Order: sequence, then structure tokens, then C-alpha cells
Amino acid sequence: MKSFVNYAPDSDFSIHNIPFGVAVFDQEYIACCTRIGDIVVDLATLYDYGYFDEVEGINENVFEAYTLNEFIELGKPVTNAVRVKLQELLSDDSKLANDEKTKEDCFFDLDKVKMMMPVHVPNYTDFYSSIEHATNVGKMFRDPATALLPNWKHLPVGYHGRASSIVVSGTEIIRPKGQTKAPDMDLPTFGPSKQLDFELEMAFIVNKNTEMGDSISTEEAEDTIFGMVLFNDWSARDIQSWEYVPLGPFLGKNFGSSVSPWVVTLEALEPFRTESPVQEPAVLDYLKFSGNKNFDINLQVYLQPEKGTECLISESNYKYMYWNMAQQLAHHTVNGCNVEVGDMYASGTISGEDPKSFGSMLELTWRGQNPLKLNDGQERKFIEDHDTVIMRGYAEKDGIRVGFGEVTGTILPAK
Amino acid sequence: MKSFVNYAPDSDFSIHNIPFGVAVFDQEYIACCTRIGDIVVDLATLYDYGYFDEVEGINENVFEAYTLNEFIELGKPVTNAVRVKLQELLSDDSKLANDEKTKEDCFFDLDKVKMMMPVHVPNYTDFYSSIEHATNVGKMFRDPATALLPNWKHLPVGYHGRASSIVVSGTEIIRPKGQTKAPDMDLPTFGPSKQLDFELEMAFIVNKNTEMGDSISTEEAEDTIFGMVLFNDWSARDIQSWEYVPLGPFLGKNFGSSVSPWVVTLEALEPFRTESPVQEPAVLDYLKFSGNKNFDINLQVYLQPEKGTECLISESNYKYMYWNMAQQLAHHTVNGCNVEVGDMYASGTISGEDPKSFGSMLELTWRGQNPLKLNDGQERKFIEDHDTVIMRGYAEKDGIRVGFGEVTGTILPAK
Repeated sequence: MKSFVNYAPDSDFSIHNIPFGVAVFDQEYIACCTRIGDIVVDLATLYDYGYFDEVEGINENVFEAYTLNEFIELGKPVTNAVRVKLQELLSDDSKLANDEKTKEDCFFDLDKVKMMMPVHVPNYTDFYSSIEHATNVGKMFRDPATALLPNWKHLPVGYHGRASSIVVSGTEIIRPKGQTKAPDMDLPTFGPSKQLDFELEMAFIVNKNTEMGDSISTEEAEDTIFGMVLFNDWSARDIQSWEYVPLGPFLGKNFGSSVSPWVVTLEALEPFRTESPVQEPAVLDYLKFSGNKNFDINLQVYLQPEKGTECLISESNYKYMYWNMAQQLAHHTVNGCNVEVGDMYASGTISGEDPKSFGSMLELTWRGQNPLKLNDGQERKFIEDHDTVIMRGYAEKDGIRVGFGEVTGTILPAK
Repeated sequence: MKSFVNYAPDSDFSIHNIPFGVAVFDQEYIACCTRIGDIVVDLATLYDYGYFDEVEGINENVFEAYTLNEFIELGKPVTNAVRVKLQELLSDDSKLANDEKTKEDCFFDLDKVKMMMPVHVPNYTDFYSSIEHATNVGKMFRDPATALLPNWKHLPVGYHGRASSIVVSGTEIIRPKGQTKAPDMDLPTFGPSKQLDFELEMAFIVNKNTEMGDSISTEEAEDTIFGMVLFNDWSARDIQSWEYVPLGPFLGKNFGSSVSPWVVTLEALEPFRTESPVQEPAVLDYLKFSGNKNFDINLQVYLQPEKGTECLISESNYKYMYWNMAQQLAHHTVNGCNVEVGDMYASGTISGEDPKSFGSMLELTWRGQNPLKLNDGQERKFIEDHDTVIMRGYAEKDGIRVGFGEVTGTILPAK
């Protein structure tokens, strides 16, 4: 496949990608869109011009919307058909290639649009599915000899997070205030968090509503997953470590999470399937799966101080995940918990074995003991005010590249 | 105040109450409503007949809706004015008292309507604010000598729950399946929960959207709370105890929660304010409050076997809460976490000191050690298939009674 749109060979947004998002065009008009290279394509206008007339199941302009939810809910047969149609339309010598009027009205330079939150998120769950991350945290906060808790290898541990504070890349995050208690103090004190951290994660988005009592098997799970985004689960370690017993993370997490604006479909990621880590002991039947359910997605984290350049601080990969998405969704629904269109399910911090692949400052600096050196000699134990954290992700194989772009967030001082 | 509608002296729905809900009328038409005695009043039609013309701030028919969210979002000045107007209209000798046509079109016998979920819940949080409950659980699952964890008296511990599975009273709940591990086994097994439980709770509902970074002080909190419902936080203890470390309850809770259909406003509860338990050690400044922030609300739990009569199994009171709603909301937002209209914040299990006031089977039977005897001699350690759990709540003082009606749920066998 080759597109009539020119883009750099290392663009995340090749003709093989065709992600979906929501943009503000001309500072006022909002619609669903896709992206190729640095061109954002207004799908609502493309629909109005009749380019989706042949796609079965799309009977009204679902792109004329503030979120992707209505489109996603059409299900895989329709959303896949739209993606394939877009690949055809964006290819050399297509009808669209020679339709100057439509291109003028539907194609926008990236710097002329503002990306919005791609979906409305009714429910958000965060898993804890990287064995390296769970082991690192266990070593630091509990006993190094028994770093993994007894349940960890039997089920994908997860918890419900806060949906209201999930925001799109570029949204500034205000440093949270809260209660913390230093180990050497008798009483807690109140103030801005001193241990603000990121967590390198990815999240998947669900495309249907189920009834309470219904379950989704590992075999059915991927048909229920529309696509994935990069996810930064901002965390205040000092607040979290004081509050989290016995009911889990709360104010240490719910002040904000950032997602990348482009949802990359599972179909675009198909060429990058890879094997999972061996699961030993064997899992219970409802968690068994067949085929390659992991994906080889390169992930990077950069830290950019207010004055200074981006510094690469972590290189990880989604393929390290011990528990895959199919298992996560099967586990989440095995008790009959219902899911809703737009639900977001995050992976948990994605760390690998190599210390350079750890997905949080907590792990990279080993709880602040070994500060990171940035390009200009500055040091960081945790994230400081006006620092920007940038996460990027892409898959690449046989000359095909499909990427997520980035999720960025800058920390503002506490109010 | 006296109403032209006749109702029993012990009705929860006196002229002093005027709660809000959503009903299906004539099996097809859905609208917001109030209730007096056993009469449900269709507020959308009442609006169309001009009875709210004098209420400032209500400019369109917000009652013509599937949820109360739009009405609630109008804020206290408007929702209070509507409630006061309804009290006036439902009083003896009002204009409405003599308007037979309007009464015929707007008044429905309770058994002719079906109550729906009163609000759409964007976010749900469950607190853990009864000191007796937290102590009981700590004694059972951890060390009796240190039953309360170190943070408990310093902050209202809470966690995010699952919004998608909150359902209205009367909805059947399917027994969840899941992983459990018996203490004497090496490996977990899979199957229907054998320790299904209720939790007697109340929840409050928020009436505004805040921005990320904003906080709600204890002084501002009550203006942000529209009203309260009864809340049954169904729990599968065997699933919960295996999964909950280190990130909190998940599948042990998210298969279903039940709420009463009528939202009782804070204004209706005003006469029943009472003192809080003394908080010692003193709390941090942002958790300090003035005035009586607790409410004296009698609570009962009944268990009804498939064949058999209701059996009273718990009598508790909302006034036992160590942490009040104002403190819960101030804590939840002190880090800048944003809230949304319709958000539901549950109290956690409401237990008192007397073992008869414990708010869960876990506590009432002390983890199954002391089974409860029902009226007909049957015994229960936990909730069995086809059992119905009924929770009721009301406040009463100086001849004034304001109640919540009931929240019921019947357990169906696992699928």
C-alpha cells in the first residue's frame, strides 16, 4: 500500500495505521477523524460527501460527534470496514486522490486542529499486569523475599480507577495536595505531594455493552476491543503509600490520568502479535487462551524540564506484559460485571527486566535512592513542577510502522 | 403541614419528605416524579400544566427525562424551590387540591408505576467510614490487637467502585462466580461464591461538576449534595479475600450494587441532624467542620428466604458514622479530583457497637461461625440463592417522619 499523502518513513501514522480520534477543526467545529502522516482527515465531512455510502451498517453520520463512542458501538464488522475503506481512499490513484474539492474540505494540517479526548469513558479499570513492575514494587514496599503476593500469578490483579479525571494528551496536571506520613513521624501532615510520578501504561477500549451476569471469554475478548491508547497513570507515591491499606489506591491516583488522542485499532496492530511470557503455574480454565495475544510495541518515556531538552528515561515494550488483554477482560467479567462502550482498561505500569525499561520514577530511581541524571546535568528523584513527561509508542516490522504518537503532560504547581 | 393526600401515620413519604425519583408510567412513559404516601406524582406533566411557572431557574421541562441528573444540576436554589413548591401544592387547600383534571393526569397509584434507577452515575466511590465495621473486619482478617490500620482515624478511607453495575431496588442479582482459595488449599479454585453478603450502606449524590484541581471544603460540601439513598453493596467475601491485596476490592464487589429508587434531599433530613462521634486524635485542618453533620436515620435489614417471611437481622443507624459526608467529600477532592453531577458516594457498611447493629452477614455471623436463626428455624451463614435482602431506613422526630422506603434484591443462582 502506498498513499498519495506524503509522510516521513518513520511516521507513526502510515497508511497501515488509520487510527481514530476526535478533533476541533477551525477552532469551532468538532468531528471524528483519522490521521495519515501529518494530515488529519475530517470523517464527518467525508461522510457527507458520500465516501462511506458503500459501507454497510453505517446509516447515519456517526462522525458528527464529540466522542468516538457511537462509532465504536457499531462493532468490528462496521468499524473495520470503515478503516479498510479509508485505507483504500487514501491509497494512490483512489477516487479521493483526484477529488481536490473533498481534499480541500476534509484534509487539515495537524497544526490547525486541536485533538480532544477520543472517547467518553463510563468506567475505568487499572490492572497490575507486568510481573517486573509488581515485583519491583513488592521489593520496595514489602518483603523482597516475597515480593509477589500469593494471588498475583493466578489472576490479573486490578482495581477500579477514577473515570472523571482521564484527560487527553497536552492537558496540564496540577500537583495534588494530600496527607502523607513520613516513616519517622507519628502523625500525618498535609501539603503538596513530594513524590509525584508517572506510570507508563497502555489501555484498551471496549466496543459494546454487556448485561449484568454475562461474561466475555478469552476467545471473545478481542472482538470486544476496539483499540488501544498510550496511558500515563500519574501517581503521588507519598499520598498513595499512606492511604492505600486496606482498600487500594485512591487520592494518590485520581487527580489525573493522561491518554494519547489517537486510538489505534487492534486490526492495525495485527502484524505485531507476539508470544506471551510463559505462565507458570498454569492458570485456571477461564484464563486459558490460544494464539499470540501479546503485541510487540516499543515504548519510550522522555522527561523534559521547563528549561531544557527531552531526555529519554525509559525504554520498555508492551510485550513484557504477563497478563494479556484477553485475560484481563475475561477475568473482569467472569463474575458477571457488565462492561460499557468506551470503557477503558489500563495495563498497569509496563516494566521489563532491564532497569532502563522500568516504567516509573519509583522504579527508575529505586524510590529516590538513585536520582536520574538529565541531559543538562539536572537530577530527578521524582517529577518536579513544570516538568513535562512524554510517552511514545510504535510497532515496526518488515518495513511497516504503526504508532500511537505521544501522550504528554506538564505538571503545574499545587494550587 | 397537612396534605390533602391521605397516608398512614408511619408512611416514609409524608408531606415533610418530598423525595425525587424516575418512574415508568402506564408501562411506557418515563418521567421524574415525587411521592406522597402511596401516590407517585408525574412532575413532567405537572410542569406542562404550569405548576412550576413561578419557580425561578427552571426554564424548560427538566422532568421529561430518564434520570434526575439534569434537574439535580440546576443546584440547590432551584431544586429546593421545587421541593418547597411541591410541599405547598400538596398541602390542604392548595390550588392543586381542587384541580381534579391535573390530579387525574399526574397522580398515580404506587402499584401502577415502575421505579427506575434515579440517576445516571458517572463515578462511584465507596468509603469505609464506620469505626465499628472497620474494627470488626480488622479483627477478623488481621490482628485483633491492631484491628484499625494506622491511617483510619486520620482520613476517611475509600476506594473507587464500579458504576456500571449499580441498579435500582428490585433488580435481581446473579450470584457471582470467581476465584477463591481456601486457607488449607495450595491453589485457588473456580466456582460460584459461597460467601455472598450484603453491606448496609447509604450513599449521597452530588449536584455539580467541578474542574480538575478544584477542591470542595467541608463548609461547601453540603451545598454540593443533592440527597441520599439506601445502598446495598453486595459482596462476595471469598472472592474478595483472595483478590484484594494489594489494590483493594474488585470482582468481590463489582457484580452489583442496589439502591433505593427515591432520593431524599438533605433539606428533608434537616430536622434529624445530630452530633458526630468524637474524633480523637484531632483531624487535619481540611477535615475540620462545624455544626452537626451527622443524621439520625434508623436502618433495618431483613432477610426473606424464598419460602418464608421477612426476618429482621440488623438494626443500625446512620448516626454511628465516624466520618461524615462533608468530610468524605472534602477528602475526596482535596487533591483536585473532579466530581460530576450524579456521582454516588457510599458510606461503607454502617455498623454500631451492639452486635445486633452489625451491617453485614460477615459481622453478624462473625465470618460464618455463629449462623443466624431465621423465623422458621432456618439458619444462614451467608446469603443463599433465592434469598431476598431488604433494607429500610427512616428518620423520626417530634411526630415528623421522613423515610427512604426500601432497597431490595433477590439472589439468583450463578449462571
